[in-house]
Amino acid sequence: MERFSVGYRIQGDEISALERARDICLEQTVEFPPDLVPYGFIQDVVMGQIARIRADRPDSCRVTVSYDLDSTAFELPQLLNILFGNISMKPGIRVENLNLPDSLLSRFKGPRFGINGLRLRLGIKERPLLFTALKPMGLNSRELAGLAYKLARGGIDLIKDDHGLTNQKYAPYAERVARCAEAVARANQETGQSCRYLPNITAPADEIGQRALQARSLGAGGIIVAPGLTGFDSMRLLAENDGIDLPVFAHPAFLGSYVISPASGISHFALFGQIMRLAGADGVIYPNYGGRFSFSQDQCISIVEGCTMEMGPFKEAFPCPGGGMNMENIPQMLEVYGRDVILLVGGGLYRGGNDLEANCRYFRSLVE
Amino acid sequence: MERFSVGYRIQGDEISALERARDICLEQTVEFPPDLVPYGFIQDVVMGQIARIRADRPDSCRVTVSYDLDSTAFELPQLLNILFGNISMKPGIRVENLNLPDSLLSRFKGPRFGINGLRLRLGIKERPLLFTALKPMGLNSRELAGLAYKLARGGIDLIKDDHGLTNQKYAPYAERVARCAEAVARANQETGQSCRYLPNITAPADEIGQRALQARSLGAGGIIVAPGLTGFDSMRLLAENDGIDLPVFAHPAFLGSYVISPASGISHFALFGQIMRLAGADGVIYPNYGGRFSFSQDQCISIVEGCTMEMGPFKEAFPCPGGGMNMENIPQMLEVYGRDVILLVGGGLYRGGNDLEANCRYFRSLVE
Repeated sequence: MERFSVGYRIQGDEISALERARDICLEQTVEFPPDLVPYGFIQDVVMGQIARIRADRPDSCRVTVSYDLDSTAFELPQLLNILFGNISMKPGIRVENLNLPDSLLSRFKGPRFGINGLRLRLGIKERPLLFTALKPMGLNSRELAGLAYKLARGGIDLIKDDHGLTNQKYAPYAERVARCAEAVARANQETGQSCRYLPNITAPADEIGQRALQARSLGAGGIIVAPGLTGFDSMRLLAENDGIDLPVFAHPAFLGSYVISPASGISHFALFGQIMRLAGADGVIYPNYGGRFSFSQDQCISIVEGCTMEMGPFKEAFPCPGGGMNMENIPQMLEVYGRDVILLVGGGLYRGGNDLEANCRYFRSLVE
Repeated sequence: MERFSVGYRIQGDEISALERARDICLEQTVEFPPDLVPYGFIQDVVMGQIARIRADRPDSCRVTVSYDLDSTAFELPQLLNILFGNISMKPGIRVENLNLPDSLLSRFKGPRFGINGLRLRLGIKERPLLFTALKPMGLNSRELAGLAYKLARGGIDLIKDDHGLTNQKYAPYAERVARCAEAVARANQETGQSCRYLPNITAPADEIGQRALQARSLGAGGIIVAPGLTGFDSMRLLAENDGIDLPVFAHPAFLGSYVISPASGISHFALFGQIMRLAGADGVIYPNYGGRFSFSQDQCISIVEGCTMEMGPFKEAFPCPGGGMNMENIPQMLEVYGRDVILLVGGGLYRGGNDLEANCRYFRSLVE
């Protein structure tokens, strides 16, 4: 009976944390009064088990709970349910990390391309990749395509839809994707580069698959999706679909509540690293430290760790820090992140002069 | 240009809340440096607008922001994205309520049955409904069906799979659903009642629809799904599917992080009331005050309000408080909730004697 385990941080001293850990063992599995849990298989296997408890901080403990692998049914939603479903409603419990055996990981495909695969496809061996977004929302498809052309001409590697662009009447999906993909292809012909356009397919549940296929047939070079809005398993399905066969970039919209409280929720490492890779992300977009959002430098580094640490047969995911970044931030980001990073600069590219193409070339010069 | 609006609670005094509200207007729409937002349509329509700010508490303000209706593309994921996508990553902002015009609501179907429809189908005019779960996880299909039979015989109205039951090898989905539905039908024939069995279809994205159809063909009387695990729009799709045509009950697993911080996230009212109805829930399961979880009585009452207040053309959703409830809690719950409630008691039914059927009859006697 193979097991997997989850590391939790539980608020309180060792005695109260132990009590809460016992509660987690029940809550996340049998949800039954402890004295009534049937002996044998259910009590010995199905119920969670405390593997370790360590009172390593004055106000909280690190607890490892192990669970029956078969109880996940090898389904991602049920895996997420076991590790945090009901206890998400109990304060003072934070998922720190997952320990998943290869026998579980091998039931998922993880990132299709990963860092190396994406580098290979783009023909960029060593330098950090440049990422930007088509914005602002409200522009029409022609205007967005015009921007895409300039950005590609200027040497950006990956151009995504802003994550708010879906199928608005001012820039309908199929029209926008066709025009932007065409504009980027045209720029590539002129420059000899291999910039890719990534439409946003965060869409109604019955349209996601179709939009992804449409993206492919219209010449997109990848897709972005916000799993907080669509569900993680919808993203996994896109990533594992051989008919789509495009790099998948995960956007963090609507996921902030999981990480925003230091004492509850899920760690940046587990959510934006381990879980994103389980769900097939080739690139993980997250708000960089020092920008408009609240992530600290340590939290950002833990995301990189979660994206790149060994994880069974899985490829590495590319960390894509962004969110309020400007040209001035780039040198320091390069110091912190090294070369295996995709630098996402959106609005910041419009600063420093009216010539967008020139601004992109300057951005590019910072990483070469 | 029609607009909808969102009420936020923003931490801070009026001056800082105003600044943060201005940031919300940008962050949730154009994500662009404020001085560079194009004049005209984008600045006047697409950008969020502060409709009202009220410094009603010493440490926080109530701010209403209005947004362009067309920017939702009338899609649920994009509506959720606009109201809380990126700002979920900024602490100190909580969605309190949504003000959605009928022109938006009419693009969704809301609950298919609602409180009245469910009462009509079950033939229960006035009394509260009785709800329980098949548990513990780890029992096989035959054992679960045996429990279902006794629970139905004892007078329970709705019997759901525990939300951790998916497609484990110890109780595979199709086998479990067939056996449990048969057991409940047999009990109904004997008692003349109309108990319904509700399988859990929280499943991989490519299997949810199929499991729901299978549930219907195997004789299930409804379905439960955890939208925190599948995405809200997957639930909406099930609820709106005429081929499924079953009451949908929403389970709160994995959603706790949105409500657990008083200063950030989404209010109980908006998440478990308004958003659940947008996503088609006929019944909303949530942890009752005083049980194993952390919701207060006021928060629970606000959920009832969100489930039943006027909301355009939408039907009301049934509040289903549960989670660690025992027979002793019932009288007080009836006082608080009145008759339009579904009382969910799980493990508590196994207390007070070995005769499960007798325990159910006692539960039933408390509401008649």
